[in-house]
Amino acid sequence: MTQATSTQIQLVSRPAGWPVPQDFRTVTVDLPALAPGQVRVRNDFISVDPYMRGRMNDVESYTPPFALGETMTGGAVGRVVASTSDQFGEGDLVVHALGWRDLAQGPAESFSPVQEVPGAPESLYLGLLGMTGRTAYVGLTAVAGLRPGDTVLVSGAAGAVGSAAGQFARLLGASKVVGSAGSARKVELLTGRYGLDAAFNYKDAPVREQLPAVIPEGVDVYYDNVGGDHLEAAIDVMNRDGRAALCGSISGYNAEHPAPGPDNLHMLTTKGLTLKGFTVGFYQDRFPEFQQKAREWFTAGRLVYDETVVDGLDRAVEGFLDMMGGGNIGKALVKI
Amino acid sequence: MTQATSTQIQLVSRPAGWPVPQDFRTVTVDLPALAPGQVRVRNDFISVDPYMRGRMNDVESYTPPFALGETMTGGAVGRVVASTSDQFGEGDLVVHALGWRDLAQGPAESFSPVQEVPGAPESLYLGLLGMTGRTAYVGLTAVAGLRPGDTVLVSGAAGAVGSAAGQFARLLGASKVVGSAGSARKVELLTGRYGLDAAFNYKDAPVREQLPAVIPEGVDVYYDNVGGDHLEAAIDVMNRDGRAALCGSISGYNAEHPAPGPDNLHMLTTKGLTLKGFTVGFYQDRFPEFQQKAREWFTAGRLVYDETVVDGLDRAVEGFLDMMGGGNIGKALVKI
Repeated sequence: MTQATSTQIQLVSRPAGWPVPQDFRTVTVDLPALAPGQVRVRNDFISVDPYMRGRMNDVESYTPPFALGETMTGGAVGRVVASTSDQFGEGDLVVHALGWRDLAQGPAESFSPVQEVPGAPESLYLGLLGMTGRTAYVGLTAVAGLRPGDTVLVSGAAGAVGSAAGQFARLLGASKVVGSAGSARKVELLTGRYGLDAAFNYKDAPVREQLPAVIPEGVDVYYDNVGGDHLEAAIDVMNRDGRAALCGSISGYNAEHPAPGPDNLHMLTTKGLTLKGFTVGFYQDRFPEFQQKAREWFTAGRLVYDETVVDGLDRAVEGFLDMMGGGNIGKALVKI
Repeated sequence: MTQATSTQIQLVSRPAGWPVPQDFRTVTVDLPALAPGQVRVRNDFISVDPYMRGRMNDVESYTPPFALGETMTGGAVGRVVASTSDQFGEGDLVVHALGWRDLAQGPAESFSPVQEVPGAPESLYLGLLGMTGRTAYVGLTAVAGLRPGDTVLVSGAAGAVGSAAGQFARLLGASKVVGSAGSARKVELLTGRYGLDAAFNYKDAPVREQLPAVIPEGVDVYYDNVGGDHLEAAIDVMNRDGRAALCGSISGYNAEHPAPGPDNLHMLTTKGLTLKGFTVGFYQDRFPEFQQKAREWFTAGRLVYDETVVDGLDRAVEGFLDMMGGGNIGKALVKI
């Protein structure tokens, strides 16, 4: 296979607080001819996610930090344009972790074939039918141990993972699902389009003040995407044996200094509560079960979704920052 | 059975911060003749425990608050002096929850027969072989899921529950057991008499500074009796999939205002950590397993213990306050 050029986004300085455009640069890289067993993919969509903010810091975590002066990675979906591997042929749809570039190239093992679901757009294999959906599903099931009849609270419920978690909770038998979001429009979407039983705008008043009224039954399962004030307020109203799946804490990702935690952790003891953090990669054994359920639900027309798409790799940083600021509804994507 | 009088300790005002002797009073109560199916017990020891501080507040919890002007309850061991029940005869050794009095009386169902272990003093059925031991055992096993080879950290390791948890962890196969305590004498006891691998005095320097050096392998299981700075420091050094059993948080029991929590809860997500609070009463299904193991370990001479005993019901409040201030080593008891 011949050479080609790939346009890519790199991190050039580590943000202090909110990232700014100057922390990134766009480069054009010459891709060599494919070695044996390799694949070249033209990305159609790349995923921009809150966890990426953590990778911009120089802190070892479950994923290593982005290296300065190297192209950032992340979820992407696209089609094979060249292959020297017998695992993939031209035109195959694949997902992979080599985001933030238009053309991705590497060993075949770095790419996963998509088991297409009739009627689903490509982008959904990054979202509801992909990593986002898996994250919502394992958080509710393997991490929080959702049982039919449980009441469920989801923070950041209009976001990518949150909007999946709210719907999945209902489909898994929750008796009541309540969500938080950061605008009146999102709140209306949650109780309308997404079918949640109640929702509130966390910017209207302190979460701690609003929560008891929207879920007077108390919370059995809390799916936390926000942390901070949301986690503290949730602990207040969690029922005996309540379980929180801590997926992320976007409220703190851009903080320059660590903020103190909830002042009510003693309730973990008195109410027998569990806080369990997780990252989806450690629950791969649950992925096949998820894929089957998600396919069934989608095919039966029981899932809705929204996407917030910016057009063009040159707007990828803008799309990321907009998502961090809560500008997105549903999955945030960059269309290449 | 004839009438008798019982001397009892009552709570008369709710402490703000540290309790003072004026919050309590001693009364003499006339006990009526036994009704059918009742038992009268002369208490030999009553238990004074950190959780009782919580019951002095007017806050609904897993146990209701002590009522003002009524006799306080709590663990006690003693012998039957009169019985109209065919379940108990005079001289039987029983444990029960009617502490803070010299004579206890009530329906037979309120008392539990002691399955005596040869060589064990009566007081041990409140401590290592009783509720204290159960609390340590279920926290390590059912709550934290201790596995052979795990490293274990115990805070308040020279206290009643802590000194049991440290020893049980070792007997359950921990690869390393480390404890904290509040004096040089206690630290020496922990690494000497109690056989811990390392121990530190949390008053010498911030826990966060001391902990990495005493357990460079990181912590797989954290048994928390203290909360506050200890919990925060433990989260820092917990290993992937680490589990904390939150038994209590004596550091905050006398605080007049809630203190902020750990500033590093984001690590729950990145390291996949679990914080699980518990109270022993919800793990009764594990008690028979505990009783069998504890009997075996004690009989084989594999357990040591200390008790801090004040003599006389009139010194019960003193004994309680001394325990809250860390004056005890091992189980704190009042000898009647």
